[in-house]
Amino acid sequence: MNIRVVPTAQQAHGIDFGGHVVVVIDVLRATSVITTALDNGAHEVIPVKTIEETQNINIACDPTKTLRGGERNALKIEGFDLSNSPLEYSRKTVEGKSILFTTTNGTNAINNVGGADEVFLACFRNAEAVVNLVYEIGKDVFLVCAGTEGDFSLDDGLCAGMLIALLKQKVEVNTDDLGLLLEGFYSENKENLLGALSGCYHVRRLFTLGFYDDIKFCLDTNAVSTVPIVKDGRILRT
Amino acid sequence: MNIRVVPTAQQAHGIDFGGHVVVVIDVLRATSVITTALDNGAHEVIPVKTIEETQNINIACDPTKTLRGGERNALKIEGFDLSNSPLEYSRKTVEGKSILFTTTNGTNAINNVGGADEVFLACFRNAEAVVNLVYEIGKDVFLVCAGTEGDFSLDDGLCAGMLIALLKQKVEVNTDDLGLLLEGFYSENKENLLGALSGCYHVRRLFTLGFYDDIKFCLDTNAVSTVPIVKDGRILRT
Repeated sequence: MNIRVVPTAQQAHGIDFGGHVVVVIDVLRATSVITTALDNGAHEVIPVKTIEETQNINIACDPTKTLRGGERNALKIEGFDLSNSPLEYSRKTVEGKSILFTTTNGTNAINNVGGADEVFLACFRNAEAVVNLVYEIGKDVFLVCAGTEGDFSLDDGLCAGMLIALLKQKVEVNTDDLGLLLEGFYSENKENLLGALSGCYHVRRLFTLGFYDDIKFCLDTNAVSTVPIVKDGRILRT
Repeated sequence: MNIRVVPTAQQAHGIDFGGHVVVVIDVLRATSVITTALDNGAHEVIPVKTIEETQNINIACDPTKTLRGGERNALKIEGFDLSNSPLEYSRKTVEGKSILFTTTNGTNAINNVGGADEVFLACFRNAEAVVNLVYEIGKDVFLVCAGTEGDFSLDDGLCAGMLIALLKQKVEVNTDDLGLLLEGFYSENKENLLGALSGCYHVRRLFTLGFYDDIKFCLDTNAVSTVPIVKDGRILRT
């Protein structure tokens, strides 16, 4: 299996994903949030690029069945129901609901990978489930790291490294230089993911904003078996 | 000192380098070749994008003072005087000469970093000398890795990691997530650079082509004190 790692959402532009499985990774926090929401029974998550677009779609939706979630500058958007904290997406809150969801990096990454045979979302919480699914399909894979503010983000990279390491336990893997580097980084640090990310810009920023519990939750590996899949602009359970 | 790492020459496009020092890294082999040529007394190296352009410039040059060097697909270009092997750029061959030089990745990287306050070229062979110079200047730094065929290349990344590690011994450094990752990778592998690069696509390719001696030469750290500087389209000794 050939695995290529795309370091940022921006760099996914222009890649021909045809014939490939794409796995989008935005550990802190979009793919962790979406995985949690669907795992807790949300009907679907609809990724939306802008706040304005989210509000326009919301007007046309049944208010008893729709929630608006996401962030700008890591914080809740004014007038929205939910922020970008996975801890808010409890079963009680999200079960049966459609969630209109807009974030700075993650939803862009999801929208930049058109043309792939399948698009799944991964985070540490569902890593093993994603790997099982990707292994079963057996096609070559692009791991698209969302990044932070246009730059490569080590939290996403560490998760990509975990996916490669887990896939290597199942199948012969050829990966690119970034994949090699990240697999090595994960393998050396798998017992202490938080320590490995202590210098990471995005982690330090969320710490400063007080999101310690969010980070801890997002670094909890293989906690769920739900794998989000992108189909016709909606994100559903596989 | 703030240090940002640009993973490929392509990603240098559109970055505003104003106010910064840029260090271009193409370990295998362009920046190693240019460093060697200037260290062995070449008058200048002129980076040229295409073979055709190289031939056109060559016609206008004094044939006793000009050499054409470079590669396509890692091999010598037909009709050129020199390939992209640093071992060919001996004092006897290059002293006093102007070298018209065209390669697939390295010369593109050099041509993509316009607007910087200073542009230096680095490789393992002159790493410490580059670090001393960059430290003296004291400005923030972009390390631009050339990459291979548009992808991040671990040989360049490992050298970027070395530059960051050496700068950290002199000054407080803030680096981005890729810089953190590469500094850690270098620090863990500094006693065995070749081993660290055993999975690297570009290294494996050059091995297959028989360039073992070139690789060994290019991984010889701090062998010279020559630092190439780009000035008005020419590469000179600082």
